[in-house]
Amino acid sequence: MDYKLRQDHLCGCLAKAGVDAFLIGHLPNIQYLCGFTGSAGLLLVEERGSVFLSDSRYDTQAHEEVEDAKIVIGRKLPVELLGEFLRRKRKQRVIGIEAEHFTIAEKKRLQKSLTSSMRLKDVSSPVERLRLIKDAEELARIREAVNLGAKLFDRVLQVMHAGVMETEVAAEMELLARQSGAEAMSFPTIIASGPRSALPHGRASAQPVPSAGFVVCDFGVILAGYCSDQTRTIWVGPVSDEARRVYDAVREAQQAAVDAVRPGITAGEVDHAAREVLQKAGLANHFTHSTGHGVGLEIHEAPRIAATQKDVLEPGMVITIEPGVYFPGKWGVRIEDMVAVTSTGCELLTPTGKEFIVV
Amino acid sequence: MDYKLRQDHLCGCLAKAGVDAFLIGHLPNIQYLCGFTGSAGLLLVEERGSVFLSDSRYDTQAHEEVEDAKIVIGRKLPVELLGEFLRRKRKQRVIGIEAEHFTIAEKKRLQKSLTSSMRLKDVSSPVERLRLIKDAEELARIREAVNLGAKLFDRVLQVMHAGVMETEVAAEMELLARQSGAEAMSFPTIIASGPRSALPHGRASAQPVPSAGFVVCDFGVILAGYCSDQTRTIWVGPVSDEARRVYDAVREAQQAAVDAVRPGITAGEVDHAAREVLQKAGLANHFTHSTGHGVGLEIHEAPRIAATQKDVLEPGMVITIEPGVYFPGKWGVRIEDMVAVTSTGCELLTPTGKEFIVV
Repeated sequence: MDYKLRQDHLCGCLAKAGVDAFLIGHLPNIQYLCGFTGSAGLLLVEERGSVFLSDSRYDTQAHEEVEDAKIVIGRKLPVELLGEFLRRKRKQRVIGIEAEHFTIAEKKRLQKSLTSSMRLKDVSSPVERLRLIKDAEELARIREAVNLGAKLFDRVLQVMHAGVMETEVAAEMELLARQSGAEAMSFPTIIASGPRSALPHGRASAQPVPSAGFVVCDFGVILAGYCSDQTRTIWVGPVSDEARRVYDAVREAQQAAVDAVRPGITAGEVDHAAREVLQKAGLANHFTHSTGHGVGLEIHEAPRIAATQKDVLEPGMVITIEPGVYFPGKWGVRIEDMVAVTSTGCELLTPTGKEFIVV
Repeated sequence: MDYKLRQDHLCGCLAKAGVDAFLIGHLPNIQYLCGFTGSAGLLLVEERGSVFLSDSRYDTQAHEEVEDAKIVIGRKLPVELLGEFLRRKRKQRVIGIEAEHFTIAEKKRLQKSLTSSMRLKDVSSPVERLRLIKDAEELARIREAVNLGAKLFDRVLQVMHAGVMETEVAAEMELLARQSGAEAMSFPTIIASGPRSALPHGRASAQPVPSAGFVVCDFGVILAGYCSDQTRTIWVGPVSDEARRVYDAVREAQQAAVDAVRPGITAGEVDHAAREVLQKAGLANHFTHSTGHGVGLEIHEAPRIAATQKDVLEPGMVITIEPGVYFPGKWGVRIEDMVAVTSTGCELLTPTGKEFIVV
């Protein structure tokens, strides 16, 4: 990864933000800018070079991972180390801190550790805006994560049957993910069967899969730092026409939104493409969430693909398209792919078919 | 869980905090107070009763899980729902928000959505202080999580050998956790072999376990909402006297800290008990982190068991005791148990032995 280039891009935002340096506290942003993957640290980015600060647990790891930043390790908290580091400086005045990530208490601690010549300014982090557009190396890693994620669905089809516990299915998927080199799942695996399929976020439970009904499977892996996210809904048992009709409507809505993705369209318009199909099918009131979200180092990142969003899609963005309809107490269906915006339209990243599968 | 009692305790803190209501945004605190386990929501706690707000993805789940709170679900963000809800009220004036959890930007959004008769006040969340002392039902759940976690170490001993990939060992542990009903691992499993054992946070990697050296195994599960945390270090291959000596010193230090745990002692004194043993063994400079931390709904919670901490231990607290020594580039050893403070001393929760194990 070209961390130096990313930091240069960030420095290019200093003047506009009206600050002399950015203090980065959000760990995925730190990873993006210098490669550190641990759980505690701060990164100060300024024209003259960056400084990464962490505690002594991460001494070796920081020296192995961090690129293009001076490393400061101590037995104090990173915020205290930062105070010491900055007290030795004279010129710097205004430090921009990420308003979306620093807590009220962290800001107070920062203020306490700084000298009077230093001032904190809340800024909307420019790092998330940089992260919106994935570079070639990121896209390559995302493709690998998506392809590994898709293999987990093949495993679902091998182990799914009426009576199996939802958590057993999740366990088999997670084992395969680990055996294939995944660092972790990108979120708690959702295996939601029978009436639980109407829960948009129904984490795998000890419930056995009922003898008839939908099973929503929503899952992803983290591979080499990058997340995958995919949903397929399958049917277990004897099928009704109504189930097929609902499934087909969601599938059509999902395809319409995928087809809409291209540079220049707004996130709201993509959302509308899916919603319109469900409207015609009389299902719009049951589509109770937004159509998708960005994916990268984090499972949920910008942009949001939702009705009110005016963000314009650009080549290099990677998003999910995941409409769903839910009938509480009865059933639910969701279909989700990941797509990358290209210069002419989009690349469908998820390789799995979307036909109606009956187990 | 007696959510009503917990909310009553929280209301008992209103006057001291100088607020008319607490707004809780930290999800584990919300779970503690009303049972909600989803990933988005806000809880307003006041004398006349509590209100839980979330988005439409969590409609069914909120109605299934949330107890002792009115439920408000909408298609807007919880903070916007809160603004609408409060605009219908007249009397309330000051709302305490959790300074350790609300971000600068979230506070700004809250301020925007409130009327002029409402004022926000940053408060150090009293919920974390309530959560310090586990009740009988929490202790029972923690014991179950710890006992399941301990079984994963038995699995380690079955699969560990020179040449096995660290992630394969982690995968076997995670499969067993899932098969046994765990919701998730409580943190990314650490299997750190050979020189990687000197990384205090060495997550399982694709590295094969070398033919000789320590392997630090640090792992935990989440079962019925509660976390376990345990570390054992084993030796693979032909053993040296030096390895035994270092292991025995860490084991003695760990035991000294466990023996020190009782009501009335400070967290700093417990830390000192471990550090003193390693000092005598000439290893204190290699013990580069603190001795432990609280565990409950979160894997890291109050109190911190560290050199400078004056917090006094009380019955019902659950903490880890986990001294370790690290020689960068060479090896590391850490031994960790969970203990519950009792009225007379402590209950060792982790059932696993601590003898020097050679594989």
